[in-house]
Amino acid sequence: MRPIDFRSDTVTKPTPAMRRAMAEAEVGDDVYGEDPTVNRLEERVAERLGLEAALFVPSGTQANQIAMGLHCRPGDEVITELGSHIVQYEGGALSALWGIQPQGLPGAHGLLTPEQVAAAVRSENIHAPRSKLLSLENTHNRGGGTVWPLERFRAVVEVARKAGLAVHLDGARLFNAQVATGTPASSWAKLTDTTSVCFSKGLGAPVGSALAGSKALIQEARRLRKRLGGGMRQAGLLAAGALHALEHHVERLAEDHAHARRLAAGLSELPGVKVEAARVETNILLVEFARPSGEMASRLNALGVLVNAFGPYTIRLVCHMDVSAADVEESLARIRRAVES
Amino acid sequence: MRPIDFRSDTVTKPTPAMRRAMAEAEVGDDVYGEDPTVNRLEERVAERLGLEAALFVPSGTQANQIAMGLHCRPGDEVITELGSHIVQYEGGALSALWGIQPQGLPGAHGLLTPEQVAAAVRSENIHAPRSKLLSLENTHNRGGGTVWPLERFRAVVEVARKAGLAVHLDGARLFNAQVATGTPASSWAKLTDTTSVCFSKGLGAPVGSALAGSKALIQEARRLRKRLGGGMRQAGLLAAGALHALEHHVERLAEDHAHARRLAAGLSELPGVKVEAARVETNILLVEFARPSGEMASRLNALGVLVNAFGPYTIRLVCHMDVSAADVEESLARIRRAVES
Amino acid sequence: MRPIDFRSDTVTKPTPAMRRAMAEAEVGDDVYGEDPTVNRLEERVAERLGLEAALFVPSGTQANQIAMGLHCRPGDEVITELGSHIVQYEGGALSALWGIQPQGLPGAHGLLTPEQVAAAVRSENIHAPRSKLLSLENTHNRGGGTVWPLERFRAVVEVARKAGLAVHLDGARLFNAQVATGTPASSWAKLTDTTSVCFSKGLGAPVGSALAGSKALIQEARRLRKRLGGGMRQAGLLAAGALHALEHHVERLAEDHAHARRLAAGLSELPGVKVEAARVETNILLVEFARPSGEMASRLNALGVLVNAFGPYTIRLVCHMDVSAADVEESLARIRRAVES
Amino acid sequence: MRPIDFRSDTVTKPTPAMRRAMAEAEVGDDVYGEDPTVNRLEERVAERLGLEAALFVPSGTQANQIAMGLHCRPGDEVITELGSHIVQYEGGALSALWGIQPQGLPGAHGLLTPEQVAAAVRSENIHAPRSKLLSLENTHNRGGGTVWPLERFRAVVEVARKAGLAVHLDGARLFNAQVATGTPASSWAKLTDTTSVCFSKGLGAPVGSALAGSKALIQEARRLRKRLGGGMRQAGLLAAGALHALEHHVERLAEDHAHARRLAAGLSELPGVKVEAARVETNILLVEFARPSGEMASRLNALGVLVNAFGPYTIRLVCHMDVSAADVEESLARIRRAVES
Repeated sequence: MRPIDFRSDTVTKPTPAMRRAMAEAEVGDDVYGEDPTVNRLEERVAERLGLEAALFVPSGTQANQIAMGLHCRPGDEVITELGSHIVQYEGGALSALWGIQPQGLPGAHGLLTPEQVAAAVRSENIHAPRSKLLSLENTHNRGGGTVWPLERFRAVVEVARKAGLAVHLDGARLFNAQVATGTPASSWAKLTDTTSVCFSKGLGAPVGSALAGSKALIQEARRLRKRLGGGMRQAGLLAAGALHALEHHVERLAEDHAHARRLAAGLSELPGVKVEAARVETNILLVEFARPSGEMASRLNALGVLVNAFGPYTIRLVCHMDVSAADVEESLARIRRAVES
Repeated sequence: MRPIDFRSDTVTKPTPAMRRAMAEAEVGDDVYGEDPTVNRLEERVAERLGLEAALFVPSGTQANQIAMGLHCRPGDEVITELGSHIVQYEGGALSALWGIQPQGLPGAHGLLTPEQVAAAVRSENIHAPRSKLLSLENTHNRGGGTVWPLERFRAVVEVARKAGLAVHLDGARLFNAQVATGTPASSWAKLTDTTSVCFSKGLGAPVGSALAGSKALIQEARRLRKRLGGGMRQAGLLAAGALHALEHHVERLAEDHAHARRLAAGLSELPGVKVEAARVETNILLVEFARPSGEMASRLNALGVLVNAFGPYTIRLVCHMDVSAADVEESLARIRRAVES
Repeated sequence: MRPIDFRSDTVTKPTPAMRRAMAEAEVGDDVYGEDPTVNRLEERVAERLGLEAALFVPSGTQANQIAMGLHCRPGDEVITELGSHIVQYEGGALSALWGIQPQGLPGAHGLLTPEQVAAAVRSENIHAPRSKLLSLENTHNRGGGTVWPLERFRAVVEVARKAGLAVHLDGARLFNAQVATGTPASSWAKLTDTTSVCFSKGLGAPVGSALAGSKALIQEARRLRKRLGGGMRQAGLLAAGALHALEHHVERLAEDHAHARRLAAGLSELPGVKVEAARVETNILLVEFARPSGEMASRLNALGVLVNAFGPYTIRLVCHMDVSAADVEESLARIRRAVES
Repeated sequence: MRPIDFRSDTVTKPTPAMRRAMAEAEVGDDVYGEDPTVNRLEERVAERLGLEAALFVPSGTQANQIAMGLHCRPGDEVITELGSHIVQYEGGALSALWGIQPQGLPGAHGLLTPEQVAAAVRSENIHAPRSKLLSLENTHNRGGGTVWPLERFRAVVEVARKAGLAVHLDGARLFNAQVATGTPASSWAKLTDTTSVCFSKGLGAPVGSALAGSKALIQEARRLRKRLGGGMRQAGLLAAGALHALEHHVERLAEDHAHARRLAAGLSELPGVKVEAARVETNILLVEFARPSGEMASRLNALGVLVNAFGPYTIRLVCHMDVSAADVEESLARIRRAVES
């Protein structure tokens, strides 16, 4: 039985066309700024996001963390949603690498309100960390793939600006937001100081992310990338995969979204399974089962449906390039068996 | 009009007897371990707390922060109540100095439940910070001077122990808890790895705190104190004040508690003033006024009642040695005027 | 005029055979430990170095820095040669990321003596940083590609062991040492706690390094790699290049060494040029010119000989795969012109 | 036999007059900025140093470390003399607390040349830490109490300024330099961005140091002091001692200098004892004995002459308030016995 892998959209494997593009990439030493493919990718990303410049890095975590280091000094505070990737899934890096204290606000499905942000900003005071950065995530992973409505995003950013805060967007899945809404990725990104995007999630490239921002910030980002050990030499081989993804795999995210909706519809008919179909906005699905999630995940894995537990009774399913429409139907059948047994 | 100062119990001035004790203190170079008065104080504190050893430091913040550094490495996580002093009032030190990421849990009046702590501990996982320390606060300042019931404290500590976490107690006002309940301070402290106490809050000494724990931890704490610049030379002058406070000012905390209850009773009769009299357990009083707290604080200050705003409509009043029973009555009259005008 | 690039052995481009190996690599999600090519590479590296386990990372800087983080806590000290890569070329990372203070000892051509190391270790003392790690570099870049004689290496390591220090080897060019001496890389590495090697220097792979050590250390290294943003997904594409390099490009380092010796011999005949031919042990050549190095480097670059200035009058030339014997002769002719004009 | 203590000028005990001044000090809560004695001390220090503002802190280490944090960010580099206090005696704090990498230059008796500093400054380059601060020490402890000649100090500072570096002066013993030369302390200090001075060394106060600089820097320093746990409440008691020392104990440093010269003269007559009498500029004396310093220190301590070993054969003697002219003669006699036995 072939396993169908819903653990993450990071598990996708490069297509033959992508492998070809990578094998033929023109390369140079990127630490000297001489890799033409990396340079082209960085220009494309900057254009797509409506920002001045971009930097290619090995991972989404590094892209976000470089942003943290650009905006903050030790003793500063980043205001963010409680479940955001930078707080939950980056190994404590924002405190460990930069000495930043997070203030995590509980958001509805990962989204904050302008009022929450306004109340969270601290006044100048030697007893408190210094509020310095607002970091948002679009789409929001732990929120269930939630898209930030542009107007709400703008309102929250405006509050931050008035308070003198910098704004970072963790856009690891920003192109999912673009495809789901028809709003260009740049509409969100250009409101920020820095935006990260990831090529190795829904876009299907094997490795790589980028951080975009002003020329001055990206210049300094090169220094921080070096410090973190993210400076790679003939990185054009990887950048070629990312460029291919950017050209060929953005629009197809719509299929993943359709698959997630189909899964939601199918699962909502199963006994004891709760899924808010209306909340499935992109490629991520949070499903509540009657059994504890650890037990349920094992049971599903045994039936060839690979998933990650996400909460006491919640399991996350992520749709991606390597899950076909037929895989979705087959998965529904397998999950039905798991639930009914 | 003499101002009556409820901003904090840190504002107390040394009594003539305390000044005399300080002026006559026998001293030596404490960095060489040769100050007899400091040594005596450290022994007394260890005894009082039922722990092996103690270290004198210039402030409560430094006592807590040394504990953070003893228990954690960069990338570790401290689990604590959201409003705890280490998160809110130590200038972001736990992230800035040690690279620790806090996980702040919302507690009822500053207290956590065993279930909350159990759910907060993260399993070993390269994506997450490593849960390493549980830090509690007794009495809990932002909770309103709340005392940790010993059995609940024990239950929460047990959860932490099972999960392999170290436990620190911020006991800046631990002697208030002792006096309010009749439970010795050591009952809480000996359940912990480290406990801090402060001499310059309710106990009325001008300067100083202590951190207590095992001999090995306190030996290492000397190193961290030096690194933070807390090593002082003829510190016995300060230690003499702290010793005097420990001998003469513990039992009298009962008066502050009585004053706080009297204030609560008096304020609860004023129109538009909310104060949960039943929740006034020690020397701290949280009062909700009809007017925004900033405005109300100014108004009170103008009438000679010095207070700090604590929330949008909440003001904190702290009773201490330099507020007499007559001051309390006078304050009630002044606050009545502020409310009614 | 085709430029001949002696700036670094990092500038090599992947060969067609290497590109093919990469294009065909079997991959998986390495963050989940499921990339078979990465796993195979890590096993091979561990075997080659005589250590238990290894971890693939994006750069030599990251490999070294993870080692720093494994062995030290903030306030610790690493003892190393003054010109070592970790002090001079890693962006201040050892202090910035881990809070480590370096004690750089002046070595003859990058090598330390046992006596130097013994004298440098500090006794336990709260005023001093805590000596915790000895970090050596073989071959030593700033020393001029110097090989550590095995017996001297062993003697220095022994001093460190007696003092309770951990030992790291920056082996970015360790295979050059192996080829130059016939001593297997593992002879040095197995004396250490951790050893890093680099695939994108002389070995000619486009991207990647590895850190090897005990299973327990490498398990913890995964956590630090994640924190630094070095966790990559289908990294097998890169690992395939590194495996190819390990199988096909080690023995050929002898050619680079021969080229370096030929360059030394040729240059030593030029007027005003100083090069200690006897000290050219591997692929790196330090040459002193009569003109200031910045001016000389510009002049050489204009003539199509790309080099880096290294000291006031010193220029470094590095031989590698993409410099042929004919290139060496042509370079000598060009440099002669630069010197004589 | 009464021990005579040359270990450090930190061992002095407060005089009766100083104790009286402290006992009668007017105090307030300095964390609120309300301690009149602290405020007066801070004004006096700023005046004496020709700088805008000053901040009272518990120790010289904290004063220096706050300066490090004011001027640098993680990844920055401080250029300083190899033996300076910030590198050797502050527990690794500059790396541990602020992520700064030191570049320690070997100075003659602790003094640097303008050429050394110019050569040490790094050009902008992502591979290197960023040179940001020059930190000097006057008098220089490990150099043997060396005074920085003002013109040389000015020349070195000028080099730093041209390179865009900030300048800090560790003036723990700056008043010794003033008294030894007749040059006011402010002549050095006003050339710097920040200068620290210490009251508990030669000046004889029990506790405390100060950091002076511009108003903006000192405002930010309050925040860093709080973070390090250096914020004290009724600190006026300590400040009164420091004020007393500043008023009554500066000129008397001349006696300590005379005692040091007398010791040097006396010791230079002993067999096997080397002391460069011409280099005894202030109150510190470095003496080389024929026996290893550890053994010699024990022998001296047994004879009631307390000293610290400083190098393999070097012992440091420090003269201070609590060593009289008679003590010096008695010490010479005891040392003679130790040497001759």
